[in-house]
Amino acid sequence: MRLNRATDTALRVLMLLAKVPAPMSVVALAARLDVPHSNAMKIIARLSAAGFVETQRGRGGGVTMGMPAEAITVGRIVALFETDMAVVECLGDGDVTCPFLPRCALKRAMSAATEAFIASLDGYSLADIAGRSQLPRALVTG
Amino acid sequence: MRLNRATDTALRVLMLLAKVPAPMSVVALAARLDVPHSNAMKIIARLSAAGFVETQRGRGGGVTMGMPAEAITVGRIVALFETDMAVVECLGDGDVTCPFLPRCALKRAMSAATEAFIASLDGYSLADIAGRSQLPRALVTG
Repeated sequence: MRLNRATDTALRVLMLLAKVPAPMSVVALAARLDVPHSNAMKIIARLSAAGFVETQRGRGGGVTMGMPAEAITVGRIVALFETDMAVVECLGDGDVTCPFLPRCALKRAMSAATEAFIASLDGYSLADIAGRSQLPRALVTG
Repeated sequence: MRLNRATDTALRVLMLLAKVPAPMSVVALAARLDVPHSNAMKIIARLSAAGFVETQRGRGGGVTMGMPAEAITVGRIVALFETDMAVVECLGDGDVTCPFLPRCALKRAMSAATEAFIASLDGYSLADIAGRSQLPRALVTG
């Protein structure tokens, strides 16, 4: 079981922004997290649409937190990026040939388990996570 | 977030066996679940090693349940196949370049959420799931 790579990157983008007070360019964010620039762009656009980050163009601009890190739970971030949460094929949008459909009790069990997963992550704020994680000094200041 | 395809197939194999009283050949299982024969073979070998199914060679042989469906939780099946449960890259075995390692609180949050996911699935036995799911009659008898 694995989260989408975009979710993983989004979490790291927010953890970095929560620790760095000054606006950061997308180029700098992508470099520091070692992800492709185009991926970082897409993820920041999505985080910005959700209000989690703000972007300012021009000199002195860049990406900053759009709300306090205390107000964002890890569960909200994961739920934003894992929009379908199709832990089994039949919870997704694609064609599925499973003979148990449409009367399958496994789907309900998986939906409940996914809710338990998110609810557990809602117990952690971004501030909790970022505050207890350590970045090499060069990444914060450089 | 998605389970491995093998996990998905293993769940369906067990749901089918829980509903079908007679031994079933691997060929028949693979055909009924519309999965490649080689995948079905590997999955049944793993289920057999865990004691969830029994296989008997020869005439009248085939695959049957190795223990009562009431005694197997969905969580145990998922945990057997999702051995690493690396929901984020850094929980896996591969090389990871994330700057937050080794001091990252996100890893602990993800481990706890994964435990909550499995614990939720431990609330359902295979018998619960198979009993409340319906197979087309042709699949059970044919």
